[in-house]
Amino acid sequence: MKIGILTGGGDCPGLNAVIRAIVRKGVFHYDDEFVGFMEGWRGVLEDMKRPLDLDAVAGILPRGGTILRTSRTNPAKKERGLERCAETLRKNGVEALIALGGDDTQSVSLKLFENGVNVVAVPKTIDNDLSGTDMCFGFDTAVSIATEAIDRVHTTAEAHNRVIVVEVMGRDAGWIALYSGVAGGADFILIPERAIDIEEVAQAVQRRHERGRDFSIIVVAEGARMARDSEAITESRKTDEFGHVRLGGIGSTLAAEIERRTGFETRAVVLGHILRGGTPTAFDRMLATRYGVAAIDLVHEGRFGRMVALKGNDITSVPIADAVAKTRQVNQEMIDMALSLLDKQEASALSSYVQRPS
Amino acid sequence: MKIGILTGGGDCPGLNAVIRAIVRKGVFHYDDEFVGFMEGWRGVLEDMKRPLDLDAVAGILPRGGTILRTSRTNPAKKERGLERCAETLRKNGVEALIALGGDDTQSVSLKLFENGVNVVAVPKTIDNDLSGTDMCFGFDTAVSIATEAIDRVHTTAEAHNRVIVVEVMGRDAGWIALYSGVAGGADFILIPERAIDIEEVAQAVQRRHERGRDFSIIVVAEGARMARDSEAITESRKTDEFGHVRLGGIGSTLAAEIERRTGFETRAVVLGHILRGGTPTAFDRMLATRYGVAAIDLVHEGRFGRMVALKGNDITSVPIADAVAKTRQVNQEMIDMALSLLDKQEASALSSYVQRPS
Amino acid sequence: MKIGILTGGGDCPGLNAVIRAIVRKGVFHYDDEFVGFMEGWRGVLEDMKRPLDLDAVAGILPRGGTILRTSRTNPAKKERGLERCAETLRKNGVEALIALGGDDTQSVSLKLFENGVNVVAVPKTIDNDLSGTDMCFGFDTAVSIATEAIDRVHTTAEAHNRVIVVEVMGRDAGWIALYSGVAGGADFILIPERAIDIEEVAQAVQRRHERGRDFSIIVVAEGARMARDSEAITESRKTDEFGHVRLGGIGSTLAAEIERRTGFETRAVVLGHILRGGTPTAFDRMLATRYGVAAIDLVHEGRFGRMVALKGNDITSVPIADAVAKTRQVNQEMIDMALSLLDKQEASALSSYVQRPS
Amino acid sequence: MKIGILTGGGDCPGLNAVIRAIVRKGVFHYDDEFVGFMEGWRGVLEDMKRPLDLDAVAGILPRGGTILRTSRTNPAKKERGLERCAETLRKNGVEALIALGGDDTQSVSLKLFENGVNVVAVPKTIDNDLSGTDMCFGFDTAVSIATEAIDRVHTTAEAHNRVIVVEVMGRDAGWIALYSGVAGGADFILIPERAIDIEEVAQAVQRRHERGRDFSIIVVAEGARMARDSEAITESRKTDEFGHVRLGGIGSTLAAEIERRTGFETRAVVLGHILRGGTPTAFDRMLATRYGVAAIDLVHEGRFGRMVALKGNDITSVPIADAVAKTRQVNQEMIDMALSLLDKQEASALSSYVQRPS
Repeated sequence: MKIGILTGGGDCPGLNAVIRAIVRKGVFHYDDEFVGFMEGWRGVLEDMKRPLDLDAVAGILPRGGTILRTSRTNPAKKERGLERCAETLRKNGVEALIALGGDDTQSVSLKLFENGVNVVAVPKTIDNDLSGTDMCFGFDTAVSIATEAIDRVHTTAEAHNRVIVVEVMGRDAGWIALYSGVAGGADFILIPERAIDIEEVAQAVQRRHERGRDFSIIVVAEGARMARDSEAITESRKTDEFGHVRLGGIGSTLAAEIERRTGFETRAVVLGHILRGGTPTAFDRMLATRYGVAAIDLVHEGRFGRMVALKGNDITSVPIADAVAKTRQVNQEMIDMALSLLDKQEASALSSYVQRPS
Repeated sequence: MKIGILTGGGDCPGLNAVIRAIVRKGVFHYDDEFVGFMEGWRGVLEDMKRPLDLDAVAGILPRGGTILRTSRTNPAKKERGLERCAETLRKNGVEALIALGGDDTQSVSLKLFENGVNVVAVPKTIDNDLSGTDMCFGFDTAVSIATEAIDRVHTTAEAHNRVIVVEVMGRDAGWIALYSGVAGGADFILIPERAIDIEEVAQAVQRRHERGRDFSIIVVAEGARMARDSEAITESRKTDEFGHVRLGGIGSTLAAEIERRTGFETRAVVLGHILRGGTPTAFDRMLATRYGVAAIDLVHEGRFGRMVALKGNDITSVPIADAVAKTRQVNQEMIDMALSLLDKQEASALSSYVQRPS
Repeated sequence: MKIGILTGGGDCPGLNAVIRAIVRKGVFHYDDEFVGFMEGWRGVLEDMKRPLDLDAVAGILPRGGTILRTSRTNPAKKERGLERCAETLRKNGVEALIALGGDDTQSVSLKLFENGVNVVAVPKTIDNDLSGTDMCFGFDTAVSIATEAIDRVHTTAEAHNRVIVVEVMGRDAGWIALYSGVAGGADFILIPERAIDIEEVAQAVQRRHERGRDFSIIVVAEGARMARDSEAITESRKTDEFGHVRLGGIGSTLAAEIERRTGFETRAVVLGHILRGGTPTAFDRMLATRYGVAAIDLVHEGRFGRMVALKGNDITSVPIADAVAKTRQVNQEMIDMALSLLDKQEASALSSYVQRPS
Repeated sequence: MKIGILTGGGDCPGLNAVIRAIVRKGVFHYDDEFVGFMEGWRGVLEDMKRPLDLDAVAGILPRGGTILRTSRTNPAKKERGLERCAETLRKNGVEALIALGGDDTQSVSLKLFENGVNVVAVPKTIDNDLSGTDMCFGFDTAVSIATEAIDRVHTTAEAHNRVIVVEVMGRDAGWIALYSGVAGGADFILIPERAIDIEEVAQAVQRRHERGRDFSIIVVAEGARMARDSEAITESRKTDEFGHVRLGGIGSTLAAEIERRTGFETRAVVLGHILRGGTPTAFDRMLATRYGVAAIDLVHEGRFGRMVALKGNDITSVPIADAVAKTRQVNQEMIDMALSLLDKQEASALSSYVQRPS
């Protein structure tokens, strides 16, 4: 069987591990042949491709990035885009397509499937906010890197009596912030799911220091929203055409605002793209490998229009439609768990907005 | 409420994270008071203790080891051991006891509970082979360290045309070997669940090299068993009074045997205790923290005789009895997944013993 | 002999390793007694102290931060500050003082020495810009962390066709930027030693992409200066009372400016304080230990007013005065080495300002 | 100019970084053309080669191993070996050859140079025992990995009251053992430079435990020699035809002997080849890059028969002859530094053999 593979959307550790697992099981057990489309849907649109055999995937397991490169090209927004995709596949004799990607990528997968293309989807989101699956590869790597960074600033914050703001990824969901904040022992965790009042945060920091804690670590998701935005915050939240926050972002601004309100030296660390690069953790490599094995199996079972998914510890699959256009946010149970580790005084300050409906 | 905590059995990354979560939630939310018994059950037997307050647990989240130290002392094997434990608890006014440990530790928890002591258990095993829970903290750390080691030997094996044997922990179950072997892209994975024939392994290595693969990485669990043991293997498997393999172990012996049979330069790396030390991964810190929170909640719900557990992504609890005296081994599904990544020729060599009943 | 120790200025990985080495050699070989003054010179001014014996230094070797904490308090700027310091030492029977710190800290050491106090200095600067010594502990750790971050963004930059700006520490000297930039294979390295023209950088990025390199990694020291500042840059360079750059800093601004001028998606990573926290590298632990051993030897040789130093591979000492008030900047030889790895077209763009006198 | 490159002997982190620096400076600044000979001298003997251009070296900076592979083939031991090497070079129009390797590799470089071949040498030894240079790339990486392993076993040793033996590389010199032992805070460091008496070591461990230290970490170089070998030790020291120690090695045997003599649970970790694989540290990448730049400069200066070298912080060069056939062992100054951190009681036990002439 001749099968196409593509990787779309943002970079994510584990993409190469998925590709490798698909190709190895496909070649060894199904005698498949593979073609890799370059730069996500752009490669399918414009027939940019490379061969994908055992040699092509040798040694890529531990590598970050994707040997197929990626882009945010969306064929549904191009003239005759979906038709051109189908033509490319037909022209190349591709009988099935495995698409690795997040919400945007899979919305195209869904449309192509509805138009008769044999598509299987593999979920991908560094933010871990895709519906339909419990966990995406890359998330554990991002949390690990963020946690290591929080570990590092801990010693400095303690030695110096400082407030340090660590900005992590997470545009619509605070999974990375919450997991790395709990794993790193952060004192405050600010997530997009709950609007925050900067004055309350500043007061909580103040109270904490009055109780003899001379330092504070604040983890903030890039997408955290303010209940009442100061002008500086509003400025910091300006986004570009891709929806990315610009010029310093929430982390730097928050640091400036807290220092202004409390008088404590406050510094920002902006982790940004280092969270989505580099070698995947062992956990993510295993998850990515299991996804790849499951995806090629789905193809040979003829179960198209489905996305591989993790439910508990089991690999299963769901209709692609279940994963598209819904964001899986941090649930109340995890927020409660994180809050339960905090002093009631700090927690009560926090709970006022945690309980505020988002 | 006055609550005791102890850590028994082998060291495991995440023990301190559990202790910290118990104490923080206990102090902040239940106004509990804690006493830490030192060196596992030995501390309860002999009334060796230290206070456990917020200061005692400050900064321990990222630390390996356990601030309460550990031992393999088993009160059930001491004269009046269980009674003396109960007396110590009574004398100290301890109303409930949270015991962190594996099979041995929890068998004592169970007996004490049956004798009327209010015990809650937290599962702990680096080998991930405890029944009743899907995952134990420490396992992800062990797999991560082993995977990083496999990554490292990969470059050397490739540059040199060598066979390298990496021995990892796993006395009765091959979870660490299987996970790190898959995550590290090992060529052979030898686990206690399947008796192995060293001659077949040597031949598979030979065939692999004949196909132009000049190097091989073999991951072997310390407890891997041979179908037909050569004298050298038998010697290497001699164990001491604690059941630990002595003098070089399976890894070194396997390396020598493969070199003797194939003529390829073969070297051994014995990871041993570095897998159970050092800072826990972010994943393990989160799991440990959730276990700690759940354990103190169980105490206040009066649900004694139970062990916190992970089922899928959810924290739940099971009767301690469910976790004791049963080993959770690697299941066929995971073995199949690992095998499906291999060349049929290599896999066929392997499947002969994989299918052999253990 | 009774000896005081203090750590002043910014946090730096290796401080604890120095303290440990001083105390161990002092106790084991000279039968010394130690007192640790807290928070740098503030502890000497205000007689804030803790005992420092073998137990106090047990286990601190791998720990970041400093068990003696630190501050930027400068007694020379307080009324009768130097006299009060001398009084505290006299009152505590402290016969000699070992001060770990950078330029500011050692300027006080020098004044106290000139006033008759027996001071030995240990150099400390994360930026590696202290005169009188070839290398300071902490620098290798900072470079390692920055290099790992550059490694990570490499995969993302390549997968996405992006420009990524990585901001590292280095206010007056570009050592961290240059070393991590070379070790991480950055495409551009911007250091305080050479004024940079943002338009030239944008053009060099443009040319690079025109040559088919779809991504660029730019490492910039926080103290990098622009030859002709745009308004945005000027704004980003506003500093607070401590001389620290505020609100996003050069990294975020540079990213915005390059994106504006080239149209390439450009993102910033601001490493900041994660470079000075956490466990020191093996290299830094060895250097710190050698400094500690040398410092206690200097005390017992009665060679006060001197600072331990590294010259090549040898530990030696220099007058404290040699280290104060001079910044050791990146030399032309290292700049040439870094430039020699670059395409002449890119290098020529760079050399125009590299050759411009700073 | 057409220039050959080869990498010989054992794998070493940084080889790819040297190759990359040579090629980049050669292409960008000298318009050189490169040919890579595969598997060390074997590639020159048998004319096995690959092109080396900018694309070939793209992305290899952080990679362990060597893209040119390596072997221990020695042309001087083959019939007409040196002549055949010269013929291959002539046939390919190679005007100069840069050989990366250790003692064995450079002994061939020297002979070829004496026969009129234009050779420049780059020193390489993971053990850091090559004469003529202060430091080799790869050593810092090996020490870092070993130190991290020692950090990890520390927590376990402390939690368990155990003795843990960590075996590291170092056949003729104890640099890795000494550096990682000091950086990791090991309690005993056993190196090839000093014959050791296992009974004395056991007694020192015993005394240490009697003083209340319940655990001990022993770092031992693979080449450590016993003053009076027990039968078990002799057995463990049996070497194969390549001079490598077999079957468990000194680490495992030492662990067994110490447990037998002291009764303390003792475990071995054998790091072996993980020390020479994987990504190089930032330090090693910088050193390797500087070596590469210096090597291509030497070629264009026509200074053949020389080896690049580090003297203090400066890159210089020495005649190849200075580096061959002499082992640079750990000097007394470093041994004294390491000893000065130890309790006199332990140190006195150690000094008895430290002072014994090796």
